[in-house]
Order: sequence, then C-alpha cells, then structure tokens
Amino acid sequence: MSTFDTGSTAFMLLATSLVMLMTPGLAFFYGGLAGKRNILGIMIQSFVSMGITTILWYMFGYSLCFSGNAMGGIIGDFQKVFMHGVDLNSAYSVGTEGRKIPEFVFFAYQMMFAIITPALITGAFVNRVTFKSYLVFLVLWQVLVYYPFVHMVWGNGLLFQLGVRDFAGGIVVHATAGFAALASVMYVGKRRDTESPPNSVPLIAIGTGLLWFGWYGFNAGSELDVDAITGQAFINTDVAASFAAITWLAIEWSLVKKPKFVGLLTGAVAGLATITPAAGYVSLTSAVIIGISAGGVCYLAVHLKNRMGWDDALDVWGVHGIGGCLGTILLGVFASKAINAGGADGLIYGGSKFFLYQTLAVVGTCIYAYIFTYGMLALINMVTPVKVDESAEAAGLDASIHGEQAYDAGVV
Amino acid sequence: MSTFDTGSTAFMLLATSLVMLMTPGLAFFYGGLAGKRNILGIMIQSFVSMGITTILWYMFGYSLCFSGNAMGGIIGDFQKVFMHGVDLNSAYSVGTEGRKIPEFVFFAYQMMFAIITPALITGAFVNRVTFKSYLVFLVLWQVLVYYPFVHMVWGNGLLFQLGVRDFAGGIVVHATAGFAALASVMYVGKRRDTESPPNSVPLIAIGTGLLWFGWYGFNAGSELDVDAITGQAFINTDVAASFAAITWLAIEWSLVKKPKFVGLLTGAVAGLATITPAAGYVSLTSAVIIGISAGGVCYLAVHLKNRMGWDDALDVWGVHGIGGCLGTILLGVFASKAINAGGADGLIYGGSKFFLYQTLAVVGTCIYAYIFTYGMLALINMVTPVKVDESAEAAGLDASIHGEQAYDAGVV
Amino acid sequence: MSTFDTGSTAFMLLATSLVMLMTPGLAFFYGGLAGKRNILGIMIQSFVSMGITTILWYMFGYSLCFSGNAMGGIIGDFQKVFMHGVDLNSAYSVGTEGRKIPEFVFFAYQMMFAIITPALITGAFVNRVTFKSYLVFLVLWQVLVYYPFVHMVWGNGLLFQLGVRDFAGGIVVHATAGFAALASVMYVGKRRDTESPPNSVPLIAIGTGLLWFGWYGFNAGSELDVDAITGQAFINTDVAASFAAITWLAIEWSLVKKPKFVGLLTGAVAGLATITPAAGYVSLTSAVIIGISAGGVCYLAVHLKNRMGWDDALDVWGVHGIGGCLGTILLGVFASKAINAGGADGLIYGGSKFFLYQTLAVVGTCIYAYIFTYGMLALINMVTPVKVDESAEAAGLDASIHGEQAYDAGVV
Repeated sequence: MSTFDTGSTAFMLLATSLVMLMTPGLAFFYGGLAGKRNILGIMIQSFVSMGITTILWYMFGYSLCFSGNAMGGIIGDFQKVFMHGVDLNSAYSVGTEGRKIPEFVFFAYQMMFAIITPALITGAFVNRVTFKSYLVFLVLWQVLVYYPFVHMVWGNGLLFQLGVRDFAGGIVVHATAGFAALASVMYVGKRRDTESPPNSVPLIAIGTGLLWFGWYGFNAGSELDVDAITGQAFINTDVAASFAAITWLAIEWSLVKKPKFVGLLTGAVAGLATITPAAGYVSLTSAVIIGISAGGVCYLAVHLKNRMGWDDALDVWGVHGIGGCLGTILLGVFASKAINAGGADGLIYGGSKFFLYQTLAVVGTCIYAYIFTYGMLALINMVTPVKVDESAEAAGLDASIHGEQAYDAGVV
Repeated sequence: MSTFDTGSTAFMLLATSLVMLMTPGLAFFYGGLAGKRNILGIMIQSFVSMGITTILWYMFGYSLCFSGNAMGGIIGDFQKVFMHGVDLNSAYSVGTEGRKIPEFVFFAYQMMFAIITPALITGAFVNRVTFKSYLVFLVLWQVLVYYPFVHMVWGNGLLFQLGVRDFAGGIVVHATAGFAALASVMYVGKRRDTESPPNSVPLIAIGTGLLWFGWYGFNAGSELDVDAITGQAFINTDVAASFAAITWLAIEWSLVKKPKFVGLLTGAVAGLATITPAAGYVSLTSAVIIGISAGGVCYLAVHLKNRMGWDDALDVWGVHGIGGCLGTILLGVFASKAINAGGADGLIYGGSKFFLYQTLAVVGTCIYAYIFTYGMLALINMVTPVKVDESAEAAGLDASIHGEQAYDAGVV
Repeated sequence: MSTFDTGSTAFMLLATSLVMLMTPGLAFFYGGLAGKRNILGIMIQSFVSMGITTILWYMFGYSLCFSGNAMGGIIGDFQKVFMHGVDLNSAYSVGTEGRKIPEFVFFAYQMMFAIITPALITGAFVNRVTFKSYLVFLVLWQVLVYYPFVHMVWGNGLLFQLGVRDFAGGIVVHATAGFAALASVMYVGKRRDTESPPNSVPLIAIGTGLLWFGWYGFNAGSELDVDAITGQAFINTDVAASFAAITWLAIEWSLVKKPKFVGLLTGAVAGLATITPAAGYVSLTSAVIIGISAGGVCYLAVHLKNRMGWDDALDVWGVHGIGGCLGTILLGVFASKAINAGGADGLIYGGSKFFLYQTLAVVGTCIYAYIFTYGMLALINMVTPVKVDESAEAAGLDASIHGEQAYDAGVV
C-alpha cells in the first residue's frame, strides 16, 4: 500500500503548481505597471528568481529552513543540504488525520514561496538597480532574512515556539518583503523621472488574474492537506480579496472621482496579502472584516507613501508590507481555536497575550528586515554598484542592461 | 476520520480555481476584441464582478439559490444569509457513492458561476454603458434573473422538479446571459462608431486559452465529485469545443475565403457554451454532434445578427445565447440515462416529454431574461443614466469614465 | 464502490488540463518571438491543432497508438476507432498499487500530447508555409511519424519491448518534433528577411510561464497516478528547468556581455524539454546534472544553427530536438531502478546495453522523423504549394493568408 494519500498529494501538487505560477504572474503585474523602457528589466528579476532560488533551495535553503534547530531556534541546520537523506519515498506528515505526502512535494511547495518572496521586493526599485547587484542581493537576502523567518515561524523555530502564528506568510513573506522594499527605496533613492505611466494595463490585469488564481494554492495549500481547514482558507482568501478590491475602488472613486481599474486590481492584491497570515485560522466573518480593513488601510498606506515622497514605484511597502503587518495583527484579534486547534484564540476570544506576541513579532520582523536589507545593500555596493548610472537610467534598463526591447518598435 | 473525501475535495478545489480564472479570461477575450479606446472599460466590468458578486453571494445569494424552497420552488430562502449556520465542518454530499466535500467548497464553486454569468453580458454593450449603471445592473440582474434560475435548476427548485436538466449552465448561465445581452443591445442601441477592429488578437487568444482551460472546471466540476461522469463531462467538453472550432473555421473560410484566427477562437467558445448543459448527460458521440452543430448554428446566428444590424459588439447573443439554447435543446435529444442515471432519456431514446420540457424551459428562460433585463435597464435609467453621452463615447470609456489608458502612448 | 481512485483521477484531470494549456502557451511563446507581421499566422498553427488533432485522435489516433499491436509492434490497430467499446466506466490501471482511472481521462491526457507535438514544429517555418499545406501536414505527420512513436514507446510496442524508456516524451515528442523542424527548414529554405526582432517579449514571457506551469502536468502526469514517482518527476522537472535557465543565462552573459531575458526563458524551456524523458526515472542529483547539460548543450546547438545558416526561426531544433536527444541519452546514463522499478539502470549503474539502446533509439527516431518529414513536404507540395510566394511573405502571413492584423494600428 502507498504511504501517500492520493487526494492530499494531488492537492499539494496543484497548490505547488499554482504558487509557481504566481511568480510569472508577479512579473506581468510589475511588467505592466513599469514604465515603457523598464519592462524587461523588472520581469527578468522575477523570472531569474525561479532559477537562482531553486538552486539555493536545493543546495542549502530547504535544510536551513526545515531541518533541525540551531542558534536557539533561529535557523535550521545543514543535515539536508543537497537534499541529503531525502528520496522519493520520504514521507511528510500533514494535517490532523494521519495523512502523508512525499517530502519532495513539501520541498517543492515551500520552494515556490522562497522564489516569490524576494521577487516581491523588486517592485520597489524598478529602474534603479543593476542586475548584477540584484543577483547578489537575491542570494544574501534569502540567507539572512528569508530563511531565518521561515525557520522561526514554519520550521518549528523560535517564533512558533513562542506561540506566534502565520498561516501562509504575513510575517514570513509579506512583512519581510514589504519592509525590505522600503529599505531599498531609502537606500537607492528616487528615480530621476517618476512620471512614467503604466505601459500596459492589460498586462497588469493578466498578472493580477494569475496572482489571484495562484493565491488559492498559496493560502489553502498552506494547510498541506485536504481537510476542513483547507476549505476555510480557500474561501477566506477569495472573500477577503473581493471585499478589499471593492473597498479600495470605493475609496479611490470617492476621492479622485474616477473608478480606477488599476485601483481595483491593487485592492485585490492588498486583500490577498492581508488575509494570508490569517487564512486558515479565522472564521469567514473575520475574513470579511480583514478584507475591508485591507482595502482601507493599504490605500491609506499608499497615500502616505506618496505624501512622504518615497519612490516605492509599484507600492510593495504599502500593499505587501502594510498588508502583511495588518493581517498578522488582525490574526491576533480574530484567531479562533474553534476554527483551527493548531492556531490560537485572538483578542476577541480573550487571547490578549497572543495578540501582543503577534504584534511584537511582526514589528520586530519589519525592523529586522529593514535594517538587514539596508545594510546588505550598503555592503553589496562596496563590491558592485547597486544603483544604475544616470545614462543607463535615462535609456531604461531594458536597453542599457539587457540589450533588448520589450516590443518591436513597429508592432502596431 | 475525515468527513471529506480528499480526492473529490482536491478536484473541487481545482475546479473552483479553474472557474475563477475564467472571469479574468473573459476580460482578456473581451478586452482584446474591444476597440482601442474601450479596453479597460470592458475589462473592469468583468473584474469588478469578482468583487461585487462575491459580496452578494456571501450576503444572500447563496442562501437564495441553495437554501430551502420558497414561492413554489422559484427561489430559496434566507436561512443561510451571511452563511448562517455553515462552518468549515459543514459537509455537502456529492455524487452517487456517498462522498462528501466541505459546504464551503460548494459555496465557492457556485460563486464562481455567479461571478462570470453577468460578466458575459458585458460584451454586448461595450462602449455604451456607464460604469455606475452597470454596477446597479450587476446587483439587480443577479437577484431578479440569475438567482431564480440557479435555484429552479440546481437548487432543487421548480424546473428541476419538472424534470428539466442542465448539467453546467446552458439555461442558468448561457441562455440567461445571452438573451440579457440581446435585450441590452435593444435598449441601448447602436454604437455611433461600430467600425473599430479588435485592438489585440493576442489578448483574445490569451482569453480563449484561459477560458478553455477553465471550462474543464466549469463542466467536469459540475459533477461535484470524481467519478465516471466527471471523466465523461471532461472529454465531452474538449471534443465539442474542437469540433465546433473547426466547423466555424471551415464555414468562414469557405464564405470569406480567409481562415480567420478570431473565427477559430470564437468557434471554440461556441462549442464550449453549447456542450455545457449536456456535458455530463450525453455520450461522446453525441458530444461530437453537439460540437459540430454549435459551430454551424452559432456562426449562422452571428451572421443573422449582422444582417439585422443588432450591435451586439462581441457576439454574446450569437455565441452564448444561441449556444446555450442549442445545447439545452440538443440535451433534450441526446440525454441518456445509461450515461447518467440522474439525467434523463432524450428524444432519440424515446424521451419526447423530456425534449419538450427542455425546449419549453429554455424558451421561457430566454423570454424571461429578455423582458426582465430590458425592464431593469429602463428602471435603472430613471435613477442614473444607462447610456454614456456622445462625447464620452467618442473619447472612449477608458479615458472618459476611468481616466486611464490601456497602453502608454509611446510603448512601442 | 467506485472503480476509480478519486485522488489519482483528480490529479490526472489536473495534469490533462495543464498539458492542454501548454498549447496556448506555445502559441504565445512563438507569437511573441515572431516578427510583427507573422504573429497570428504562427499562433493559429498551434490553436488549430487543438481542433484538428482532437478530431483525429477521436477518429483513429488513440486506437492506432494504444489499441493492440500491429506490424510487429510498430503501430496499434483499429479496434478502438471512434472510441469503439470504450465508455465512461472503462477503467485504465495505473501505477503499481492497483489504482484505476477512467480510460476517458487517459484518452484525454494522451490527446494533449498529440496536440502539442506537431505544434512544436511550427516555430521552425514561421513566415514561410501556407496554412493549407500546414493542415495537410498536421494530419499526415501525426499518422506517419507521431502515432508510430507513441505506440512503439508508450503503447507497449517495439521500442518499449526492446527496453527503451521515455518517461514523458524525449523521443516521442521532442526528438520527433525537433528533427521534423530541421527537415522543414531544409525543405522550405530561408526567409527572405531574417532580421525581424521578437515583436513582444512580454508575450514570450506569458508563453514561457504557462509552458513551465503546464510541464508539471506533462512530466509528473506521465506517471498517470499519484505515488512516490509522481513527486520525483515533479521536482526533477522544476530543478532541471532552473539549472538550465541559469546555465544558459550565464553562458550568454559571458559571451554577449548582456544578461538576456529571452535567453533565460529559452534556457528554461531547454531544461524542461531535456528532463522530459528522464523525469520519473532518475534521482534529483541526476536531474541537476541533466539541467546543467541542457543549458550548455542546447545553447551550443542554437549557436551551431546560426553558424550553419539554418533558418530555424524560433529554434525548435536546438531546443526541442537536441534537448530531446540529450535527455534520452542522459537517461541512458542516469536511469535508476532504485527510483523507478519500471525503468532501467543506466550506464553509471552498469547498464551499458540500456545506454546503447537509448542512444540508438533516439538517433533512429531523428533520422526517421527527418526523412519522413522532408518526404512528406515534397509530397504535399505536389498537391498544394507548401511555401508562400514572395509577395505574401513580404506582406506577412497575418495579412496575406488570414486577412487579420494582430494589433489595431493605433492601439498605442
């Protein structure tokens, strides 16, 4: 008889495929938002993570995240480097009903998260960062920021032991990436020309469609099994995205007097980011409140950014950073053991300590991600210039760095 | 032990995700077909349904469709508003082999149908309808047209009790949307400029690819389980689409002397719409005949529309309306209890009464959808203008309503 | 009780849907690479295969591939033409643990391979071949090249009996298509203008994203079941693609001094093609080596093609032909019965005979595909001209053959 449950394994293969597709989706989302001379420069930053991150994950990333416990639960060990000791028959226990999936599938699923997280950051520094320095950043950032947080939260590490919960990546993915984005913007400064409109809204829409589609795998898949919680996480994800999209549209419409398509799409992504940490731990009603909050708070964050003059070109901080924080804190409010016994009871169920820990954890995460990212960029800059020079920026990165053009000049 | 079958639940999570992706797919299909100044105006009408419809479905849509029976089986009741009494452990029995899936998954799956159905209509009135009136229409149309038909056919309501069958939405989705589209065209009249060619055929192709992909979830998923009928519905869907696409291509090629790519794609969608009501009730041979019929009949319908001068810009009536009717009536001919014991025997198996009921049901549906849609638009127009004014239409809705442009003018 | 395992069947429905999506993905990949006047002409060649091939597969393709054994195991028989004797309850045994899926699902899954294989070839002769002759070619090529190889390798035919292995299509799909592409180029000659740059790199990226996504279904799905080998094939696929993409990027960057986005994407596809025959038969370490080899060898092949002046416009031979051969031969080196008892032991495990047979089989396949394709084109040319005339080529096939334009001239 097989060790593996065919249904749960089939679902996790689906979820893994869906999360993989999010990185191309992100490339299209950012590629559409970017100005017309920086389309390929931003898209390749997502796609290259599919290559580089996979290699790192195989070499030591998976091991550092999910094998053992070192440095007081801050990071894993090197027992599983190059997948040492793991083969196709290795089983990984999931859920509460004794089912198993292949460890290779768990490995692949988690890898897709490692791929997209640093790619999220790239939206902040579009048109300003050299490809070479980005590649160095991609490696260092995973080792120094991403892996520790994966281990601490999902690898049975320090934060998990302290009771902190993060269903699919509010802390691990969105807060780390969002505050790394902010640090990047502070480090590299403004673009010389910040006025370029999105070059292709249809491309943004293609990206959003695929991101939303893939997010079902991201959030529902984080249960790692097919059970009641999987269904809860799925529907919470969709409902929060919908409420956030409409909230954003309504606020923007009332303020700028036009119902903006890009605003609707951005609002949906904000809702998806915000529900992420809470998806499998809260009730549907709570997901509704989280979605509405996401639309409002992330809209305000983007507004604040504009007023502050931070040139976070594609709003990584306002959408992912603030969304991830908000979701993690609201999980502290709405988490319910009646939904997920592996979770906790939030503030409204008397869990004030849980609320406090969630808040402290996410604030600490943001500070850590900010400081390490800023320092890392300064360090990289000693070896290879991080910022592109003026002429390259003026020409656009597509031509100056990659020697390519997104569209043949005469295509239409 | 789990209440839920992991394989069937995994499949329904897949199917739900696939149907969700159809709405972005539809936005790309329509967005590519639209003229160059009305790309975002049509795309947002699909995407906004993902937000608005989800909210309605959660508030009362699901309950009105699938809870109880009111008004003689025409509509459900309010027992499950805001998903009252449903939680993550609620089970929904599916298929004939005693399996269960979470009710939340059934809720989500059916929601995706509610999202796409009104979005289908928008292809008819591209470039002519205000966004504000569309939002009102989106709400009213679901309450007054969509919910009753869902309940009557799939919610154990009147039509189902009378023996009418509709596997995945010939009556409920395509006939209602297609005749609502015709009514809209009659109400709003022609565009002032009807000559704009498709702005992007690649975008149409992206849309068609995703629609076809998603349609497997739409049709095979309508079995709600993984069994023999699921496989039958899957293969019937694919085969009918293929035969319809080639039939359309061949007819158009012989008439206009060019093998048109857009024709091939439109033919495929016609085949998919037409097989929808029959997918899980007929044999593969019948699916072939249905596919060929779809290509021919829907092509003729579009031809007729052109001769009549109806400005159904993106052929919602000819493809979905006529496809839905044709499929429902052909189900009356080809349905076989040997394929699906929950179905019926069609005309060729002696089921003349079933054939008659199918025909009457779909004709009644079309009349109902036409009248209610027309009346609804007249009613909405008393509150907020339905038709855009001349200057807005001339400028295009992207600029005049949304203040956005699809492409940066200098992108290529 | 059901005959069918719900988990395995759910997975195969997923895999089938994923492989279906690869053909639109290929259309976008090629459509983006093509010059600006030949976008639709190449895209329709992929999409039309979804129609034509499905019809052939239903009529006699499936039977010739998977029913019985004729002509000494070179081809199947006609027992299952028009799916004679197969209905929704027909079961197909899969894997080693006694599970079953519906034969209809197996039929649909294999059909998706038949659809994409001839479509792969079209990248070679973009802008030079008439649509009419392509349609004839599509039919003949499947009957004379594709079906025999499917039968010989996957239909329990001659090559399988001799011990040759091909997990998901190194011989059957990539070698046949790649050498058919080379033969096509030799037959039709060069384009008059070979200088057109890719018209849309974003469209190439959309295609690559969907191809990569779909390839999980292509390779992991070829186990036809959910078990340990499925997980192995999945992760091998992803890891090989990643290593190949980075290898290609690195080589090209060091040679042309620019990190090319299109190179990264092409490298990923080369890795995916190369791991295909080996995916379920080799260890993860072997997949890494295969991926790196793919990036290097396929890059060299494309370079060689350029030096030879072969106008294989979109590099079908270099990527798929050489990738398929390389993968099949490396399977001869790295195959391990410890991974898959249904496979073989390769050269490094003492299987020198297996290595020899793999090498001979794939060399023979290439020769066969080359000769038959070349001859077939010469034959077709007697009935209808294969090559477009000079004025049609100058105008581009979109306008001259299809009477359509990809983009409305004023779209931006």
